[in-house]
Amino acid sequence: MKVKKEFAVIGLGRFGGSIVRSLTEQGMEVMAIDINEDRVNEFASIATQAVIADTTDENVLKSLGIRNFDHVIVAIGDNIQSSILTTIIMKELGVEHITVKAQNDYHEKVLRKIGADHVVHPERDMGRRIAHYIVSTNVLDYLELSEEYSIVEVMVNDILAGHTLVELDIRAKYGLNIVAIKRGKEIIVSPLANAPLELNDILIIIGADTDINRFEKKVLVE
Amino acid sequence: MKVKKEFAVIGLGRFGGSIVRSLTEQGMEVMAIDINEDRVNEFASIATQAVIADTTDENVLKSLGIRNFDHVIVAIGDNIQSSILTTIIMKELGVEHITVKAQNDYHEKVLRKIGADHVVHPERDMGRRIAHYIVSTNVLDYLELSEEYSIVEVMVNDILAGHTLVELDIRAKYGLNIVAIKRGKEIIVSPLANAPLELNDILIIIGADTDINRFEKKVLVE
Ligand SMILES: Nc1ncnc2c1ncn2[C@@H]1O[C@H](COP(=O)(O)OP(=O)(O)OP(=O)(O)O)[C@@H](O)[C@H]1O
Ligand SMILES: Nc1ncnc2c1ncn2[C@@H]1O[C@H](COP(=O)(O)OP(=O)(O)OP(=O)(O)O)[C@@H](O)[C@H]1O
Ligand SMILES: [Ca+2]
Ligand SMILES: [Ca+2]
Ligand SMILES: [Ca+2]
Ligand SMILES: [Ca+2]
Repeated sequence: MKVKKEFAVIGLGRFGGSIVRSLTEQGMEVMAIDINEDRVNEFASIATQAVIADTTDENVLKSLGIRNFDHVIVAIGDNIQSSILTTIIMKELGVEHITVKAQNDYHEKVLRKIGADHVVHPERDMGRRIAHYIVSTNVLDYLELSEEYSIVEVMVNDILAGHTLVELDIRAKYGLNIVAIKRGKEIIVSPLANAPLELNDILIIIGADTDINRFEKKVLVE
Repeated sequence: MKVKKEFAVIGLGRFGGSIVRSLTEQGMEVMAIDINEDRVNEFASIATQAVIADTTDENVLKSLGIRNFDHVIVAIGDNIQSSILTTIIMKELGVEHITVKAQNDYHEKVLRKIGADHVVHPERDMGRRIAHYIVSTNVLDYLELSEEYSIVEVMVNDILAGHTLVELDIRAKYGLNIVAIKRGKEIIVSPLANAPLELNDILIIIGADTDINRFEKKVLVE
């Protein structure tokens, strides 16, 4: 059993570049690959290794020992052909786990057919997240648990501030559970039922989307 | 008080387009704007209104009545000048709330100086999210509550399956709370302490990042 997983990221745009930085911050070994020299230079001091390479060339991928990586992320966007070809070659070479950024639904379909293990749509997914929280300016972030359940962050406004959880009785009235309260930098897990909420506290709430919407409409109206 | 908020989205790439779709699905009024006719046509049957316009032209923005919208999202990416100019004009015209997509940190700084209310980095943020969950293939999604606290989704593997929460005693051993369990399409909020976990259940866990990492390393090793 290897202790550390080894990652390679192909394509160092905003998305791929962010993955390289974040994996490195988490202490992982990351090879950063791009066809563009300037982009590679940007990551020379960040990644474990930074390599200029055209990953649509099978021999190049072989010489990089690509099949020894535990997980390769293909973050080539606009050039859909290169993204597909890179993925096909890596499958043939036996790379264990491949995650690919898709530009659209057709691209995703092709990627799945050729055996990509995981297909991601960063712009689309982030668009959805942002659309969710701008609908109610009080909802700051959310995690979609299923089609119908979410965890949301809701800011305490004048209407809620000063009241205790017992008084508000959100569980009985809305079927929602308060998982935690964020107060400044502090996170209060299992908050006390009889402590008053403070203005700008952030409630971490779990529940059905319909109940969350009901709560937002009732309690967070401006 | 208006019942429905009105939104405008400028730039119908993957990110802006996704926002238009999601806002519309949530029942909002959305005007979709792009300089590119093909992109606008794509949204003719989706948005409340779809308009071909160059938003760097002040008169164009005035004639669209841009200042009457409650919230305008600028999702112009590659053309940073257009993004900045569009934002400046809207500030001058008195648009109440402006969210802008930034391409990099310099772009963000300029946007903040000229008064953008909210600056977003979709590719960067999604890169971070994905980097977090690929480090442990068992962590499926996560919500960062603060620098040190997160909510994560963790898949139940052979090691955990069959055990009850009492047996695992995750709270005492790791300082983590299990907020909910996702089993197929069902979400079990406040799960029973003495019901055995099933393979592929998804645990929704809240806690300090260090404790979550400790738990992952100890319990989720392959
Ligand atoms: N054949 C290839 N081999 C290696 N890298 C490639 C190849 N083709 C494209 N790339 C690289 O992929 C990176 C991402 O490409 P893309 O066109 O999606 O950039 P982007 O729009 O900046 O992406 P993002 O939306 O993540 O910011 C670029 O840096 C590009 O040089
Ligand atoms: N001055 C302008 N007025 C209106 N729309 C514009 C203007 N300039 C650019 N746009 C539009 O903004 C949209 C987004 O531009 P961008 O170059 O970021 O596309 P993209 O890379 O496809 O974005 P994404 O990463 O969200 O997929 C394009 O559809 C473009 O036509
Ligand atoms: Ca692009
Ligand atoms: Ca992009
Ligand atoms: Ca939903
Ligand atoms: Ca963190």
